[in-house]
Amino acid sequence: MKQYLQQDNWCIIEEGFHHAHNRISESVFSLGNGHMGQRANFEEDYSGETLQGNYLAGVYYPDKTRVGWWKNGYPEYFAKVLNASNWIGIHIEIDGEPLDLAQCEVKEFTRTLNMKEGYLEREFIAQMKNGKAVKVLATRFLSIANKEIGALRYAITPLNFSGAIIATPYLDFDVKNQDANYGEKFWEEVKKYQPNGKDAFIVAKTKKTNFYTATGTNFQIWQVGKEQNLHPFLTDRDKYLAATYTVELKKNEETVFYKYVANVTSRDYDSKQLLEIAMQRIQTATTQGFDAMKEAQAKAWENKWAHSDITIEGDVAAQQAIRFNIFQLDQTYTGEDARLNIGPKGFTGEKYGGSTYWDTEAYCLAFYLATASPEVARNLLLYRYKQLDKAIENAGKLGFTDGAALFPMVTMNGEECHNEWEITFEEIHRNGAIARAVYDYVRYTGDESYLADFGLELLIAIARFWSQRVNFSDDKRKFVMLGVTGPNEYENNINNNWYTNTIAAWCMDYTREVADFVKRTAPEKYTALVGKVNFHEATEIAQWKHIAENMYYPTSEKLGVFLQQEGYLDKEQILVADLDKKHLPLNQKWSWDRILRSCFIKQADTLQGIYVFEDRYDMDTIERNFDFYEPRTVHESSLSPCVHAILAAKLGRQEKAYQMYLRTSRLDLDDYNNDTEDGCHITSMAGTWMAVVQGFGGMRVREGQLHFTPFLPEKWEGYTFKINFRGALLRVRVHQEGVTIENESTQNISLYVHGEQYDLAGKEVLNTNLQAVFA
Amino acid sequence: MKQYLQQDNWCIIEEGFHHAHNRISESVFSLGNGHMGQRANFEEDYSGETLQGNYLAGVYYPDKTRVGWWKNGYPEYFAKVLNASNWIGIHIEIDGEPLDLAQCEVKEFTRTLNMKEGYLEREFIAQMKNGKAVKVLATRFLSIANKEIGALRYAITPLNFSGAIIATPYLDFDVKNQDANYGEKFWEEVKKYQPNGKDAFIVAKTKKTNFYTATGTNFQIWQVGKEQNLHPFLTDRDKYLAATYTVELKKNEETVFYKYVANVTSRDYDSKQLLEIAMQRIQTATTQGFDAMKEAQAKAWENKWAHSDITIEGDVAAQQAIRFNIFQLDQTYTGEDARLNIGPKGFTGEKYGGSTYWDTEAYCLAFYLATASPEVARNLLLYRYKQLDKAIENAGKLGFTDGAALFPMVTMNGEECHNEWEITFEEIHRNGAIARAVYDYVRYTGDESYLADFGLELLIAIARFWSQRVNFSDDKRKFVMLGVTGPNEYENNINNNWYTNTIAAWCMDYTREVADFVKRTAPEKYTALVGKVNFHEATEIAQWKHIAENMYYPTSEKLGVFLQQEGYLDKEQILVADLDKKHLPLNQKWSWDRILRSCFIKQADTLQGIYVFEDRYDMDTIERNFDFYEPRTVHESSLSPCVHAILAAKLGRQEKAYQMYLRTSRLDLDDYNNDTEDGCHITSMAGTWMAVVQGFGGMRVREGQLHFTPFLPEKWEGYTFKINFRGALLRVRVHQEGVTIENESTQNISLYVHGEQYDLAGKEVLNTNLQAVFA
Repeated sequence: MKQYLQQDNWCIIEEGFHHAHNRISESVFSLGNGHMGQRANFEEDYSGETLQGNYLAGVYYPDKTRVGWWKNGYPEYFAKVLNASNWIGIHIEIDGEPLDLAQCEVKEFTRTLNMKEGYLEREFIAQMKNGKAVKVLATRFLSIANKEIGALRYAITPLNFSGAIIATPYLDFDVKNQDANYGEKFWEEVKKYQPNGKDAFIVAKTKKTNFYTATGTNFQIWQVGKEQNLHPFLTDRDKYLAATYTVELKKNEETVFYKYVANVTSRDYDSKQLLEIAMQRIQTATTQGFDAMKEAQAKAWENKWAHSDITIEGDVAAQQAIRFNIFQLDQTYTGEDARLNIGPKGFTGEKYGGSTYWDTEAYCLAFYLATASPEVARNLLLYRYKQLDKAIENAGKLGFTDGAALFPMVTMNGEECHNEWEITFEEIHRNGAIARAVYDYVRYTGDESYLADFGLELLIAIARFWSQRVNFSDDKRKFVMLGVTGPNEYENNINNNWYTNTIAAWCMDYTREVADFVKRTAPEKYTALVGKVNFHEATEIAQWKHIAENMYYPTSEKLGVFLQQEGYLDKEQILVADLDKKHLPLNQKWSWDRILRSCFIKQADTLQGIYVFEDRYDMDTIERNFDFYEPRTVHESSLSPCVHAILAAKLGRQEKAYQMYLRTSRLDLDDYNNDTEDGCHITSMAGTWMAVVQGFGGMRVREGQLHFTPFLPEKWEGYTFKINFRGALLRVRVHQEGVTIENESTQNISLYVHGEQYDLAGKEVLNTNLQAVFA
Repeated sequence: MKQYLQQDNWCIIEEGFHHAHNRISESVFSLGNGHMGQRANFEEDYSGETLQGNYLAGVYYPDKTRVGWWKNGYPEYFAKVLNASNWIGIHIEIDGEPLDLAQCEVKEFTRTLNMKEGYLEREFIAQMKNGKAVKVLATRFLSIANKEIGALRYAITPLNFSGAIIATPYLDFDVKNQDANYGEKFWEEVKKYQPNGKDAFIVAKTKKTNFYTATGTNFQIWQVGKEQNLHPFLTDRDKYLAATYTVELKKNEETVFYKYVANVTSRDYDSKQLLEIAMQRIQTATTQGFDAMKEAQAKAWENKWAHSDITIEGDVAAQQAIRFNIFQLDQTYTGEDARLNIGPKGFTGEKYGGSTYWDTEAYCLAFYLATASPEVARNLLLYRYKQLDKAIENAGKLGFTDGAALFPMVTMNGEECHNEWEITFEEIHRNGAIARAVYDYVRYTGDESYLADFGLELLIAIARFWSQRVNFSDDKRKFVMLGVTGPNEYENNINNNWYTNTIAAWCMDYTREVADFVKRTAPEKYTALVGKVNFHEATEIAQWKHIAENMYYPTSEKLGVFLQQEGYLDKEQILVADLDKKHLPLNQKWSWDRILRSCFIKQADTLQGIYVFEDRYDMDTIERNFDFYEPRTVHESSLSPCVHAILAAKLGRQEKAYQMYLRTSRLDLDDYNNDTEDGCHITSMAGTWMAVVQGFGGMRVREGQLHFTPFLPEKWEGYTFKINFRGALLRVRVHQEGVTIENESTQNISLYVHGEQYDLAGKEVLNTNLQAVFA
């Protein structure tokens, strides 16, 4: 845990340069616009600790699998988000000494991530070894309005001299991924174009996957309000272009370098036209100019915040944290492109390959449903639908037949990338989350047409998987599911994981229900689908019903709790509170076998199941399970605390809910797990949002209507959140006097607060009394 | 399965060169003498498929671990047997064309491994592309009498020309392991000495481990019975020395090259003296000369065979196979050095790192006990005893305390090398086999002094481990052992593996018994040990007793069988016979999860337990378990069939026993598993020996006496085996008329045949009737 960043309502601020934490700052101050993103690397040279990262959404490399001991069925490769061309680079040299913050005295350093307007700014004075001192102000952003464009402004002022300096802007595709399994470089040069010092273009392609990418830059030097026309010395080597300028600076006068960039790829255009399109984009950017683009950027973010902001009154740390989480989610995924998804690190690092995990459906979907238009969530669903064929192939590799689908644990293009048998082959509950996302989407949006068009086909394939994955135990006279890993990854290869069995049975039930619905409401589409997927309606539906009705659920009658898995009570039962703190975190202190045979839980999947299916269980049942599992949970998954926060809130345990919220909200800002240097925990940020909106705000959707059961955490004076729901935009403010809900749209809406129904006309404001409920 | 080798009672013969199988032949025709070994690579160049291998016992390299996903507790390295200097190489060139069997027409090729006298011979005519034809006869061996010495004779005869050829003998340390995790070379040159063309010496050392090794060679050229003194051109580069001779050959006249080698290492001598010692060894070898050394080799093998031979009458394939197994075991481990052990591939390949597995105690020990002097088995035990400190450290890494020991799954020097959590951390039954080896050794040899000197200390450490590894289940009111992998590796991370629980309880009981014995018989040593290991006698012994008495053993009352593990009966119960053959072998056809959740068994550990503790169970129990587990066992471990053979024999199922024997006896000769190219299955060869002696011969030791219950497999006319037991040497012949036991020693012995006691004086012969028993 590190707390070196300044607190502020709208900005993340580093005051003074923290060399030792530079990789952390690079992650935290990352920029992204859904199409591309980058870590907060420096424009000038930096010889200290750094992880260089420029990423293009959907451009990946299938890195050859590295494994200790091969298991049959492992994938050949792991798809990695690529480190793409470095376009921010400007090598600065003064009297032969490169400007490098690791090599000079750094004064008055401030790095600011302005989340309100979506840009990164850095200011410092560098006192160089040769005695020269310069002041720099560097500003940059990736345009939301024009996603293929980015721009930076780098203003340098000599403080104690006048004279020539060297400035070498460059474009560099000759980069590596630090996590390349075999140290390989993934890019190959296709062509280059450097008509003059100002403009430079490189077209490169990835090995194997052949993603063509054109990166272009335009470089300008401005002094006293005028662009300077200088003649640079050009450098041209493999995958690299640079222009070296000698620039005369005047003491205390600012010289400004502008660098515009365009990144276009063959994901969107014919590879042969990329160079030309990149030139057009550069033209667009330079015509508009840095200041106008920056203004447009602020406008675009204003609009995003209008639909997604959460305010917290009386707690700056919490305010900053929740906005940071929303900002990063909105930088990572913008929802126009159904081929993209949300990597665990977004554009903030290489780790986990930037691929898709079940996090998307189980955690992120709720955020995008409530803060963006329905198309955004729909595209997340379509992403999986488009990969259904590959999921069927994937299941085939594990021996499943007849159109059964197993979606991958980790994927980029629908193929499995992960290679740990206990995860890849056994953490199959992901299939449940993907089915449940269909339900969640339809419940939230009311878009029932999705079911006939896409949903049912996917559900049938998933139901088929479950029906083959269980087997009938003669011993138990029930269907059992052997050899799985639940969301609690601190148990591997277990039998009858309660969560997995529960969601599997639900999938089979829901598929039956949807099949019936589509058959009734869209008979022609139904008939077409029956033919397409060779659906043996009568027998398959009967089988699913039979299995779901006869599924085995491990339970302790004595304790009145669901059992995480068979045999859980054979473990030595110890509570986390009774464990000497020196053993924590378990995943750093204990060998894997010790973790596995202990009763300790990474994230409580029984509680996860209760959260997902909460309407099935009475409060006593929820409470008994919460009181049994929460004290055994070490929360060593960043996805864990939010669910506990929501259930604690439901049980009226406000203090517990607040504690759980705190564990995630500043996870990256305070480097809670000592791993932010690798990138931010993007997907768990959605969990933080859930903890506020579903936990503190008690938001639920039931039968097409919004319900709220809010409370105000003791430490806060008030908070607000935004909900976009079926055309209405609500601003929900929870404060000491009650709940104020403002309908900011013109759409009438009916909703419930603490069980009481209210009708809100467009632009109407509702005030209810909060005190009464939690008296 | 390939059957390209000729059958012969004493030799392995390849007639005609099988290019495509060359790597297999290199494994099968391997040579070794306990100190060093080598694959049957060619002396001359070979550009076809080959795995070059020269190995020095105990000289290893800690290769940096390669792993997909790191788990806490994994070792940093995997100790690999090193590919050491190639000393056999003689590059031959005729008119600019290298002699290379991959590039010329090969006629009259014969490769022979003479197991009776311990040498390898190869004869061929090479018709070269340039029209020249030569005949070659190459013979080589690694001396048993003088273990640091090897020699080869390479006779070349031009068939259709007279003229000069080039011969370049070389010594090459610049070699790699094919399985190096990161492609690294492991040797560094220390010094070289090449006084003339005849002699060459290289001292090299391994990186990290600093094993210094001196390899020296002497090269001689003989024509018409006289050594020729020619002046070679010398080549000297990093880790490589060569001498290039131009030799005049006469048509149809043999020219003979001799190459003598010495390999000495810093394991045995001061590293500074290695060069000098190597020179002395070369002196010894050349003084004695090739023919005299070869004669001594035959003598040494004659003596080995006198103590270990098995003959099979009326089945050449079986005869050849069993001798091959014995020969390879005797080439691999000779038992003078308690720092050495038996790698799964011996000196025949790189795979599995050449390290020590539980195979040694569970399979190999019985062979060496019965066919060699007791010191050999004792050294295998001392190997583990010497590593006890490291086993205690190893247990410490997994959280065990107070002197508990967990011996590694795979090791070279006592440190764990393996990195699969389900094996490394969970296949802990190995501790049981290591304790049981103490029991087996004492039972066989009667050497009870071992217990006070070494055995008890090791047993206490192992009993401590088990007592900490179990936990009391409040649910079952029994001690349970969670998260283990049994010998059946087709189940991972299971609870209450019957075999592991059984052997764990036995360890605790046996430790109590030995503690009591040592206390009574060697009170001073006992007191010293109590102090040394801080033995809390009363409480620890009481605890072990309590745990052993209250251990949980999964059982099916209904089926009357022990359950391999908890929940085994929840699996879909299918028999191997009912499985479509296209699914076999499962480990190549099924993904790992599918194997794990199936009922199919790699090797039946319940039967393994019954084999180890057979005297506890009545025949009905053995039969019920055998009939339940055998049909579910796919025998995809080479260690599996022998135990089934022995139990089948015990149950009077001779045909089944014979079938099981067949599955292992020619495993490598017929390349049954398509993997002999990587090396031979050395440790499972001991299982083949067990199948004959303990299975067909029914040999057991009970209360210090030998028991036999032999039968004659239908296909055989008779068989004999040798048993060395407490000073007596028996030749047991089983034939159609009965059993003939010849006491070849002068030591009187009392023994049992089919339950009948007999007293044999020295040199006496016993004839009993076999028919009566299996009428």
